[in-house]
Amino acid sequence: MDFESYIRDIEDFPKPGIVFKDITPLLKDPKALHKACNVLCEMVGDQKVDKVVGVDSRGFIFAPLIASKLNAGFVPVRKKGKLPYSTVSESYKLEYGEDIVEIHTDAILKGEKVVVHDDVLATGGTASAVCKLVEKLGGEVIQCNFLIQLTFLNGSDKLNEYRIKSLLQY
Amino acid sequence: MDFESYIRDIEDFPKPGIVFKDITPLLKDPKALHKACNVLCEMVGDQKVDKVVGVDSRGFIFAPLIASKLNAGFVPVRKKGKLPYSTVSESYKLEYGEDIVEIHTDAILKGEKVVVHDDVLATGGTASAVCKLVEKLGGEVIQCNFLIQLTFLNGSDKLNEYRIKSLLQY
Repeated sequence: MDFESYIRDIEDFPKPGIVFKDITPLLKDPKALHKACNVLCEMVGDQKVDKVVGVDSRGFIFAPLIASKLNAGFVPVRKKGKLPYSTVSESYKLEYGEDIVEIHTDAILKGEKVVVHDDVLATGGTASAVCKLVEKLGGEVIQCNFLIQLTFLNGSDKLNEYRIKSLLQY
Repeated sequence: MDFESYIRDIEDFPKPGIVFKDITPLLKDPKALHKACNVLCEMVGDQKVDKVVGVDSRGFIFAPLIASKLNAGFVPVRKKGKLPYSTVSESYKLEYGEDIVEIHTDAILKGEKVVVHDDVLATGGTASAVCKLVEKLGGEVIQCNFLIQLTFLNGSDKLNEYRIKSLLQY
């Protein structure tokens, strides 16, 4: 399937100079949605997976689909203060300032095999922080799984200790 | 399956006096995740569905699963300013102030059959605004579908023109 034809470029979003990759044309097409999920799962291969972690909020779209298909559980990572139970947190640098992501302390058991999923790998700051959260709980990140990788932003540099897979690369 | 045993009460979240229904124990359990998705789909029945609309951000967890299983497309509704393409918007009252939700103008075609999904039906303000968005685009809301309905908050009063289904009621 030509997935690229379902991704729409939006210029100057969310701010001037940025070309945003809009995935909603893919999501609203039943066949593209279904097939993209299948390919994201194929990217994981036949490794045993215990948990699929999705990053708030667009990572929530495919992570539960991948989890369900691989017979794994789904775990949300969210910005600080959004998760209701006890959490561990990790901060990461933004262009200006910093951000903090959190995971529930009981979300992952020691030794569990974890796939980290987000829709887009950009600079890698968020994904790297999410991997650290998984490891703080004793989980093993077996793959960082993305719908889209913006290779020109070199996000893979921040994830060089992990196996990175993406469905589309720009 | 005893879904209720997978829902955790968190007292005083997000603010004092509120008992929050934490669905993460259900999400992280592969069997409960899978089975909950099946029941949410069974709630739709054998009606033809074109699109499943999910409300940012916890509505994003099950809406794509339901869409994929029903061979429908998934459409996100988000808070103002989050969607990149042209949108229509709808405001609704909160306890203090108001909020605005948006949908892409090309998300739903005239006459399409739409299921609106969110994790929790509380006062019904968000769900009611989402239904109006669907109707602004010419879609027909055939069901409002929730994981949890907090019946004591009377959200169904705001949705009395729609068919409401929920997996768990409190």
